Amino acid sequence: MKSELNQLMAERGLEAVVVLASHDYSAALDYLVGSVHITGGMAWKKRDDAPILIVNGMEIEEARASGLTCYTYSDFNYYELLAQNNNDFMKASVALWGVILERLNIASGKIGIYGVGDHHYILALTDLLREAYPHHQFVGESGMTIFDQAALTKSADELARIQSVAARTNAVMAMTWDFISKHHVADETVMKADNTPLTIGDVKRFVRRALLDHDLEDTGMIFAQGRDAGFPHSRGQGDMPLKLGQTIVFDLFPRELGGGYHHDMTRTWCIGYATPEVKELYQQVMTAFDMAIEAYGLGKSTHLMQETVQDYFEELGHPTLRSNPNTQQGYTHSLGHGMGLNIHERPRISHASQEDTFMIGNVVTIEPGLYYPEKGIGIRVEDSFYVTETGELVSLTSFRKDLVLPINGA
Amino acid sequence: MKSELNQLMAERGLEAVVVLASHDYSAALDYLVGSVHITGGMAWKKRDDAPILIVNGMEIEEARASGLTCYTYSDFNYYELLAQNNNDFMKASVALWGVILERLNIASGKIGIYGVGDHHYILALTDLLREAYPHHQFVGESGMTIFDQAALTKSADELARIQSVAARTNAVMAMTWDFISKHHVADETVMKADNTPLTIGDVKRFVRRALLDHDLEDTGMIFAQGRDAGFPHSRGQGDMPLKLGQTIVFDLFPRELGGGYHHDMTRTWCIGYATPEVKELYQQVMTAFDMAIEAYGLGKSTHLMQETVQDYFEELGHPTLRSNPNTQQGYTHSLGHGMGLNIHERPRISHASQEDTFMIGNVVTIEPGLYYPEKGIGIRVEDSFYVTETGELVSLTSFRKDLVLPINGA
Repeated sequence: MKSELNQLMAERGLEAVVVLASHDYSAALDYLVGSVHITGGMAWKKRDDAPILIVNGMEIEEARASGLTCYTYSDFNYYELLAQNNNDFMKASVALWGVILERLNIASGKIGIYGVGDHHYILALTDLLREAYPHHQFVGESGMTIFDQAALTKSADELARIQSVAARTNAVMAMTWDFISKHHVADETVMKADNTPLTIGDVKRFVRRALLDHDLEDTGMIFAQGRDAGFPHSRGQGDMPLKLGQTIVFDLFPRELGGGYHHDMTRTWCIGYATPEVKELYQQVMTAFDMAIEAYGLGKSTHLMQETVQDYFEELGHPTLRSNPNTQQGYTHSLGHGMGLNIHERPRISHASQEDTFMIGNVVTIEPGLYYPEKGIGIRVEDSFYVTETGELVSLTSFRKDLVLPINGA
Repeated sequence: MKSELNQLMAERGLEAVVVLASHDYSAALDYLVGSVHITGGMAWKKRDDAPILIVNGMEIEEARASGLTCYTYSDFNYYELLAQNNNDFMKASVALWGVILERLNIASGKIGIYGVGDHHYILALTDLLREAYPHHQFVGESGMTIFDQAALTKSADELARIQSVAARTNAVMAMTWDFISKHHVADETVMKADNTPLTIGDVKRFVRRALLDHDLEDTGMIFAQGRDAGFPHSRGQGDMPLKLGQTIVFDLFPRELGGGYHHDMTRTWCIGYATPEVKELYQQVMTAFDMAIEAYGLGKSTHLMQETVQDYFEELGHPTLRSNPNTQQGYTHSLGHGMGLNIHERPRISHASQEDTFMIGNVVTIEPGLYYPEKGIGIRVEDSFYVTETGELVSLTSFRKDLVLPINGA
């Protein structure tokens, strides 16, 4: 939880963390200072001190809405530094960091750098900082960062927001089911009232609007049919008409509008009818899903849940990433992942990741699947869960798991 | 233009550029390989060779849609490397880069790293790469990057897309004007049919839906009223009712849905009526706008355009960033900026940035403004422009520049 950040900084010898804001939403910035809509600027947190925001004067009102102590670049003499450096923005930025380090009384030690932005920029800036301030170490982090570790366990406030996003995402999933089912059929194709085919693009447009109506935003939904569904991350082709009897993988993982907490869920639908082969594979995925939940235990290594599912699929003759790391059919991905301000957080639920255990406050997905692209088949079922204060695994995802989506004329 | 990339790489001694994909949209990736919806993976371009894509097996179908030569991690033995490195993802990634460098026959030299993602990750990865491959230099770029320089001049194809985004953005601006004007008024407040106030949140919701209907997505519009409008980057408060006679700064800069080209335009509206003071300041901003266009010349330094506007505003007694770099009232920002796959590109139109000149193929904004937050006033007017093959500056922004938005009952 966020309250652990000072301790985590101490454990890792970080004197300060700096989160740079850019035009893009940054989960680290949101986590450290709350939802603040600034373009550029940065949040500094000296260990054991409250975070502060330093922004362009133009952004000061947005920054102040955070409730934090806020400064403008002018407060650190930025424009004088810019003039002294012949308007070289990089040199002036490096000088600005020097003034900030001095004012915050950070004479040496490790400074962790976070945020989302351009790789070329942060590499160039960090090289200059290292040259200019050799008594400090400007560092990244790999593996489990302090933010990853803090975010492993969600607070009650975070959970309440996640539950709200979950309820709204489930509502949009239900609206989408109803939207499709109200169409009619001609020649095995789902048709609109004007007798043109309903396309994946039409469905995605409906979903995006429905999300907005629920103050959510799409972050790249998958709505993939037939052969495309057989590739777990194929997003689906906008101009493809919806057909009866094809597997459709609908993976919806929106977040709060403008950036924030996510919900992640997947359903597999066959419109009108499903073939016996698909029904059988779907039943296997559902069994795997139930086995995964059964395999849950507080404090248990997360990879054991994945291995349970892999054992089952391998017994049925499906390749898995464990039996063949290069396979592109069968069960070709991890069982799940943590989720929060980022769509992918820790813990991982993968046989290849043995460090994570289930903890109180975890929010995770469970999403077994089977993929046979050459047969035109892809199936995945995904709910999100949280681990309660008493260690139980509770679903956040209420929408039904029917395979066949009924439609008139099928 | 993109065709200059090989030459730019040669000039800067770059043997290869690598653009890392992440969950976030990356303009550099889009520029190098086109719109490709992959999560993770990377594009490599060895100088004078076509770019290639290297992705997780799950993403291969999406990658292939780019038309490029595509590889999976498996093709570079990633899973074997992962096993050899005890499932340490960072170590395996470093080993993977080694295999790629070898296969692409890049024995030494500068490798530029680009893309958008987590700062902590790229810093940690690059430190490991530098340690592992001392014959290569893994570098960022500051100032004008090769992508910045190439994107200074847009191709005919790019311009066609930008014109389409411009037309759609103008349509949404017009719809928003009509939407507001169809409300009624009570007690100086804009009211909905149900006799509750129309809020900024309501307007933004309308705008986001209208954008989606035009296959555009919001990237953080500003709709700021009264005192908020006086801070150029204040986004506006969602629960604030629209009031008569207040300045509203509406800055709309959406992009193609899922990432792509932008359009950027701003209008200032007073609903029902404007005070004499606001009318006078608005007229000054419009005069500045016309003077800026008048000051345009092919090959001319861009900063001269800003200085023309600063001369004018300063003569009228308004502080500017040139007369007082710390001012938070008067004219407090640059006159404009290049625009394309990024909302902010080169050239800059700022008195503090003297390297840029107007070139054929430029796409730029021109956006003078005046801000007096303590008086509750903010005014900005912004159109986007392109420089034609014959060197003329042509507007992309057709929507009217009326200050007063008429409404029944005002």
